[in-house]
Amino acid sequence: MKHMKQIHIGIIGLGTVGTGVARLLVENSDVISARLGAELVFKKGADLDIARDRGMNFAPGVLTTDPYEVINDPEIDIVLEMIGGIDLARQFICRCIETGKHVVTANKALLASHGNQLFRLAAEKGVALAYEASVGGCMPIIKTIRESLVGNRIQAVTGILNGTCNYILTRITREGMSFEQALDLAKAEGYAEADPSLDVDGFDTAHKLAVLSAIAFGMEINYDDIHIEGISEITPMDIEFAAQCGYAIKLLAITKFDGQSVEARVHPTMIPLEDMLSNVSGTMNAVTVSGDAVGDMILYGHGAGMMPTASAVISDVVDIARSIVAGGAMRVPVLSFRMEQIRKMAVKPMDEIFTHYYFRFSAMDQPGVLAKIAGILGDHDISIKSVRQTERKLNGAVPVYILTHQACEAQVKKALAKIAELEVIPQPPVLIRMEAPEEEKAQQQS
Amino acid sequence: MKHMKQIHIGIIGLGTVGTGVARLLVENSDVISARLGAELVFKKGADLDIARDRGMNFAPGVLTTDPYEVINDPEIDIVLEMIGGIDLARQFICRCIETGKHVVTANKALLASHGNQLFRLAAEKGVALAYEASVGGCMPIIKTIRESLVGNRIQAVTGILNGTCNYILTRITREGMSFEQALDLAKAEGYAEADPSLDVDGFDTAHKLAVLSAIAFGMEINYDDIHIEGISEITPMDIEFAAQCGYAIKLLAITKFDGQSVEARVHPTMIPLEDMLSNVSGTMNAVTVSGDAVGDMILYGHGAGMMPTASAVISDVVDIARSIVAGGAMRVPVLSFRMEQIRKMAVKPMDEIFTHYYFRFSAMDQPGVLAKIAGILGDHDISIKSVRQTERKLNGAVPVYILTHQACEAQVKKALAKIAELEVIPQPPVLIRMEAPEEEKAQQQS
Repeated sequence: MKHMKQIHIGIIGLGTVGTGVARLLVENSDVISARLGAELVFKKGADLDIARDRGMNFAPGVLTTDPYEVINDPEIDIVLEMIGGIDLARQFICRCIETGKHVVTANKALLASHGNQLFRLAAEKGVALAYEASVGGCMPIIKTIRESLVGNRIQAVTGILNGTCNYILTRITREGMSFEQALDLAKAEGYAEADPSLDVDGFDTAHKLAVLSAIAFGMEINYDDIHIEGISEITPMDIEFAAQCGYAIKLLAITKFDGQSVEARVHPTMIPLEDMLSNVSGTMNAVTVSGDAVGDMILYGHGAGMMPTASAVISDVVDIARSIVAGGAMRVPVLSFRMEQIRKMAVKPMDEIFTHYYFRFSAMDQPGVLAKIAGILGDHDISIKSVRQTERKLNGAVPVYILTHQACEAQVKKALAKIAELEVIPQPPVLIRMEAPEEEKAQQQS
Repeated sequence: MKHMKQIHIGIIGLGTVGTGVARLLVENSDVISARLGAELVFKKGADLDIARDRGMNFAPGVLTTDPYEVINDPEIDIVLEMIGGIDLARQFICRCIETGKHVVTANKALLASHGNQLFRLAAEKGVALAYEASVGGCMPIIKTIRESLVGNRIQAVTGILNGTCNYILTRITREGMSFEQALDLAKAEGYAEADPSLDVDGFDTAHKLAVLSAIAFGMEINYDDIHIEGISEITPMDIEFAAQCGYAIKLLAITKFDGQSVEARVHPTMIPLEDMLSNVSGTMNAVTVSGDAVGDMILYGHGAGMMPTASAVISDVVDIARSIVAGGAMRVPVLSFRMEQIRKMAVKPMDEIFTHYYFRFSAMDQPGVLAKIAGILGDHDISIKSVRQTERKLNGAVPVYILTHQACEAQVKKALAKIAELEVIPQPPVLIRMEAPEEEKAQQQS
């Protein structure tokens, strides 16, 4: 083989993903070079702990504890920020961009909080800031939206983007265990952190959604505008009832754009069993993108893990390397739309959204209770699709399950507050939003 | 908005897909320009019938009946070949490439038969020959394999790639109708051609598989080496039994590479219901790509249809346009691997493959029949996983269903031929290959 151009890679942070990337660069260098036509050389890796056994051998001088040995190395073309966290990561990335280095990151928390500034800086300096691995692990959701769906007006992106939550919901569904039991299991299996809040309270999913709605609709990243609810209130009882009605409960990231206003929300959602997303189990992730030309398209794959995430990082590295080889970076705008086209767009307040709802009330077992509930719902323009009352008693009360047609969130909140005040309703009502089955979606549009 | 660069597009063939592309170029020109930073101008469209109402207005002089008005227009940068068929399409594409025009096509039959020469010609002339829409409709399977999985050794690609077949199998599964009834229904719904052979006999699926195995493994396109079976022999009886055992029957395109030899085959396949592909219904398509880093990743979407296919064509057009704007075409090698890396690779003869099998025998209702069948299977190293015999009689015989562990195709054929000779087996045996559930796959690998 004739002498190939070398492109030098530096990695800051040799934790799980950083080590996975280093492994792929070495172990799969033959297939990468055969596809790229250049050689990716892992020149320097910085980590506070360079003594730890990472299951591979590094050439002498490759490892360092000083990230600035990577950042200031004039030979390094592309730096991979793999440390996570906000402040240091941001500082390192800014420094790389300012010195004209291309950057690859998987840091969704950083992009959600400081993405707008970082992307603007990268565009000004004419370097790439790539982030495929920040959303959906190995799934090429960023590339698909930015490149493959370039001819579409994107209408919605709906995804299962957190493996920890999906694992917990899968366990509750299959074994009927409580949230707490399932969380303990997730911790034991290594799928949940000691402090699980980032995952189970929906923040991680919202970080990813902030990036997706930006690139889908041409808007600035707007993490603070996202409505976020986690999965800690989900019970086996609700999941069981959902299943009986033909639904699964998943933590969904949902963003929609009707040409006027954007919705962006993360919450447990009942989705029809005929929707492919309902079959996504365990730690797997999946995203549905809806565009005016493609209809619904789904990507499915490992949303996290050493090698799947490393695969996504390498795809970014090779994309940048191809532009270095071909002599023109910044081929695809970082946020899909050209910088000057990106608008600040307001997200619709939750009170204004219309969707379908599932309610569970704990009602005293007395005649006339259902009439009262139905009356209050009717007074708030909430039309009931189906009702079920069971014999099973919970602290002396029986559960009443209600599915609604499309209703307005503000009205729903008012109605539930009124119902909660009834003496015959001893416990606060449960609310889970639903995505309608296809045929109802079609009816709504017509 | 400041004056943008214009890139001129010509379309040869304004049938369904060609018209869809023209519509997207006009109706979504605002979002396309906002993402691309250049304007795509539909300059000329050639079709034998330019009088037909296509639901849109064309500027004067855009339509012509002479394809060479498109090919010879020096201002046109990218030509879309949308006529289908082999000879004329090939002639037009060669002429475009020779005059330095980039080409986009959705013509899988042409690529399967003449792709190697066309791709070589394009590489020589330094122009793009893009074909995302040739496989899987709107799904970005070509881009995903070529770009997103660039860091992986690809191990297998398994897909439902023909909407007509999947529609027919879905109808047989759901309504228990015969193949013939389901085919008639598909024709009535516009999902099958008057001559359905290209679809139902598996040829269209094999055209697509030829392209996928080439880009997955770095081999020349090898349509003639693919083993092809269609779905016309599938009966509701087999589908019903499969469902009882936890399987669905789908027409799968399967290609695998273990580092030594390639498998490439199209045939009806029993897949476990926990496999996401088993839930792909109606005319939808889906592909699983397995790579050493990503594990299994799935794309799902509309495999055909005017606008989904047009969306894929536009993604190719914009990719090429970005390279024109940035000043460097041929960024990604056409067949994923650089031309000089692409090898002629032999496909393993069917006789040498190992897989799981389902057999259905029609047996006379006599004692000792099962012992005879089992004896012959055992003599050929075919290990039985489960057997079921039902009471239901078909022309005086009862069906005997057998699922096997992994066995060698050559042995299976020999065994079935021997069993067919038995006097107690009045009808030819039925054979359907199976993909094993995950846990068995894991066992086999360990």
